[in-house]
Amino acid sequence: MAKHIVIVGAVALGPKVACRLRRLDPDAQITVIDRDNLISYGGCGIPYYVGGDIADIEGLYSTTSHAIRDPQFFKDCKGIQILPKVEALGIDRKKKQLKIRHLDDGKEGALAYDFLVIATGATPFRPPIPGADLPQVFTVSNLHNAKDIKEILSKGQVKKAVVIGAGAIGIEMAEALTDLWGVDTTIVEMAEQVLPAALGKHLSRIAKNQLEQNGVKVLLSERVLRINGHPTSGVTSVETSVDTPEGVLACDLVVMSAGVRPNTLFAAEAGLALGSSGALLVDRRMRTIDPYIYAGGDCVELRHLVSGENMTMPLGSLANRQGRIIANNIHGRASQFKGTVGTFCIKIFDMGIATAGLTATQAKASGFDPVHAMVAQHDRAHFYPDSRMMFITLIADAKTRKILGIEAAGHQGDAIKARVDAIAPLFQTGLNVDDVCVLETGYAPPYASAMDIINNAGNVLDNILEKRNIPIDVMDFVEKFTLQKTRVLDVRDPKEAAPFIERFKDRWINIPQPELKLRINEVPRQDALCLLCGTGARSYECQVLLAQNGFTNTKNIQGGYAMLAAAAPEFI
Amino acid sequence: MAKHIVIVGAVALGPKVACRLRRLDPDAQITVIDRDNLISYGGCGIPYYVGGDIADIEGLYSTTSHAIRDPQFFKDCKGIQILPKVEALGIDRKKKQLKIRHLDDGKEGALAYDFLVIATGATPFRPPIPGADLPQVFTVSNLHNAKDIKEILSKGQVKKAVVIGAGAIGIEMAEALTDLWGVDTTIVEMAEQVLPAALGKHLSRIAKNQLEQNGVKVLLSERVLRINGHPTSGVTSVETSVDTPEGVLACDLVVMSAGVRPNTLFAAEAGLALGSSGALLVDRRMRTIDPYIYAGGDCVELRHLVSGENMTMPLGSLANRQGRIIANNIHGRASQFKGTVGTFCIKIFDMGIATAGLTATQAKASGFDPVHAMVAQHDRAHFYPDSRMMFITLIADAKTRKILGIEAAGHQGDAIKARVDAIAPLFQTGLNVDDVCVLETGYAPPYASAMDIINNAGNVLDNILEKRNIPIDVMDFVEKFTLQKTRVLDVRDPKEAAPFIERFKDRWINIPQPELKLRINEVPRQDALCLLCGTGARSYECQVLLAQNGFTNTKNIQGGYAMLAAAAPEFI
Repeated sequence: MAKHIVIVGAVALGPKVACRLRRLDPDAQITVIDRDNLISYGGCGIPYYVGGDIADIEGLYSTTSHAIRDPQFFKDCKGIQILPKVEALGIDRKKKQLKIRHLDDGKEGALAYDFLVIATGATPFRPPIPGADLPQVFTVSNLHNAKDIKEILSKGQVKKAVVIGAGAIGIEMAEALTDLWGVDTTIVEMAEQVLPAALGKHLSRIAKNQLEQNGVKVLLSERVLRINGHPTSGVTSVETSVDTPEGVLACDLVVMSAGVRPNTLFAAEAGLALGSSGALLVDRRMRTIDPYIYAGGDCVELRHLVSGENMTMPLGSLANRQGRIIANNIHGRASQFKGTVGTFCIKIFDMGIATAGLTATQAKASGFDPVHAMVAQHDRAHFYPDSRMMFITLIADAKTRKILGIEAAGHQGDAIKARVDAIAPLFQTGLNVDDVCVLETGYAPPYASAMDIINNAGNVLDNILEKRNIPIDVMDFVEKFTLQKTRVLDVRDPKEAAPFIERFKDRWINIPQPELKLRINEVPRQDALCLLCGTGARSYECQVLLAQNGFTNTKNIQGGYAMLAAAAPEFI
Repeated sequence: MAKHIVIVGAVALGPKVACRLRRLDPDAQITVIDRDNLISYGGCGIPYYVGGDIADIEGLYSTTSHAIRDPQFFKDCKGIQILPKVEALGIDRKKKQLKIRHLDDGKEGALAYDFLVIATGATPFRPPIPGADLPQVFTVSNLHNAKDIKEILSKGQVKKAVVIGAGAIGIEMAEALTDLWGVDTTIVEMAEQVLPAALGKHLSRIAKNQLEQNGVKVLLSERVLRINGHPTSGVTSVETSVDTPEGVLACDLVVMSAGVRPNTLFAAEAGLALGSSGALLVDRRMRTIDPYIYAGGDCVELRHLVSGENMTMPLGSLANRQGRIIANNIHGRASQFKGTVGTFCIKIFDMGIATAGLTATQAKASGFDPVHAMVAQHDRAHFYPDSRMMFITLIADAKTRKILGIEAAGHQGDAIKARVDAIAPLFQTGLNVDDVCVLETGYAPPYASAMDIINNAGNVLDNILEKRNIPIDVMDFVEKFTLQKTRVLDVRDPKEAAPFIERFKDRWINIPQPELKLRINEVPRQDALCLLCGTGARSYECQVLLAQNGFTNTKNIQGGYAMLAAAAPEFI
């Protein structure tokens, strides 16, 4: 007898399960319901639709060959029944029935299933602050509000906007508002950095500087307490936790991007187990505690393969991969999805940022003893033209030398992604620092240095763990130097050091590296010294030379001048 | 007592060993000899110097901070003694002495060592054909002949050039000659494809088309038998194995790029073991059979981690990584270099090509049962602007489902490298097809599709292994269709199919995918059918639908129209 599979949710994972199942089983009866009438869309494309990279909203729910993915398409082309504007009310797990309501006429009914798939995704969190329901206060949740936002922008009604939250969606929306529409945009973030879930302090500063250099204002460690405006004409301003006139931000548009909450209410009411995030718990085969009910995508918790902890990871890429796994399992084939290493990437104007694994803060919270290397290097062979600086943070556990995380930033986004993608899938294999030192990635001068930045990051981390490289982070250096707790030994060329010597007098010493051996007696023995070169490589060599000559009070500024310029441009 | 380390060869690995050792051990006496006076250069940059991307040859032996890496630099800056223009004559392994000769005055001598490092690299092979020693016949071996080539080019003395060999160096040199200097360049390759060591048939055709579309002529399955010219005025033509007037190629410059031979004569004479390639055999710690003699770089054989066989892999990137390993081991720390997976990448004009592992031919020769998937997909989310097609071949063993190789080509070189780098380091871990299906790489619409091309390649390969996708390669299809052994069912839009129907009449049938279910009776039951869509994805769905309806004589054209246009542009 034909299996009856009912799928709740028709955006990413739902259609994927349905289409794969149809190919595996020509006889299965497959029904997909969704609350919306627009289905099977690329939600991750919304900021690019708002920002004009994608002209028509149909682009987000068309196939690569420009067919519109509507219920008729799924019926004709895939043999799948899609019921739009239908809501899931509850599950009778004993009877194996899904209770539903048609949103157009309110009629209720039931769908019998052999297997049920919950693909209800997540809904943007709307912080419960006064004014959150005013007109022109939007979340980025579906194509309807994407259209609404673009409509008021295209009417020229928006001069100033406030974006609440500096996560990926907030940053992408801020870029869209600024870049195409010239809207004066401010991001308000309650954490002390942008992208707090993805980046450590230094790369998040590079991201923030990139936003500011492109005209986006960024306010950190501030909360939005209230949104002011009129119920009909809409928002006029936002008040933050800063109790001065600067804490009032005039605006005509507010975008809330304060994270998402999984849509699991009806599933929880049916007794399915939820994790602490409110998302469904599933096993490696993507099964809930009910063997006839699968779930995947933004509404489930995944195992983080580095920390071992459960987490949500709302990404279309993971949802799609899980969809195939679920279909395989329903069809009777053993397929597993082991979890996630939290791989993430984002374009911020002309910069790419990518990460995987844990940040140092997250690693500490998970019981590790994180040690990190920070490296700056060109993205092509140094003799090849048009190269730009890349920055990588590589984090390992001091005890086991296992790699815990990597973060990268730079102007060749694909090259940045290449570095993180080369590391991320290896986390599961227990990758350690020594493995990274010899990691074999593609080399040709137009694409990389012979010693790739990844290998160098491994080497630096090895040197740090072996206590040959005694590092100091750029931001710690800036603080220490400002408090007059250290002098600088700048081993670059005299003309590079000159402006700093002029500013800081004898607190900034210059001995170029090739002369250091001969002039070692000029190095002050009694003072704390931070060593600076272009990227941290030559200053490391100098640190070793100094240590071999009895100088033990030195620190090597990680990433050198390149990192200083990128993370702390206000200092230079 | 201070260790005395003697290193033979001062290009890539030699200086790396020396510098790392100096940092590990301030007291070691480190001496490096080299036959040349120009040392520590980026040999892989030579084609870019000839082609003008790098203006001055000093760029190839300068540090990132523009210091010239000459013997004085190594002495002052690193405390390393470099003896240029000194040749190794032999090794007295009992006495632990290296016999040397000073090339300037012919004086001989000996250097005592505690550890000896052989880093003599490889020399370009000069095929023993008549005329190989004429003026203007060059190999690409060091900075001296790089200078010579650029000099005659810059004097405008070269109108036509012949490059012998379509390996990496040959292709890079052909691009350099054509692109900057407008030289009418022909590559002659004795194999039936370009890059025979790196690519399978289809991606090699894409590479060849890319060369031809940029003005380079490519002659395959031809040997150069003779170079004609005058001992003083130089070459005038080249004669190939084609016995017609087309086999005589007039030219003023010949570049020989027919592979390299390891420089191991004096090492072999000292009784050190060589592999079948003539390169030195070393263990994982990069030690020869003499525990006091290490070797690395282009003069050693490495273990290929997929085939298990020994091979040479002359790449600066590997040499550099091995250098650190050798220094660690000499210093008394256990460090291992397990081998190589043959990762390789190259830029051909505005296209990037990357590979790792084995080609199907190599896999078969190593005893595997290779099955491959070929996939075409956009390099950004399909709704994102300015995306270009990428092509991937993924190869697995049919019995074990283990991944054996990956090849990729496309116009975003960094994105191509990203795909191969995400797979290559995993070969060692026994990566299988199912792992690739869920491989977690970075996703954001500006950089990838939600279902990345890597995952799709895994999915296609899984479908092929499960016999749901019955594939045919593009070149096999072209042959079969030309021999009238198959008809085509084109499931694209009517306007895309129209020109082919006009050309091929009823041998080319068009039923767009969304109509196939309803019009299934129009599909001929008796004929062999090759299914075509844009990239091979929709035609696969159609193949499954047809199979579910009793059509068993169909083949799915891998990579669809995109692959056809890229690999067989003469057909379309």
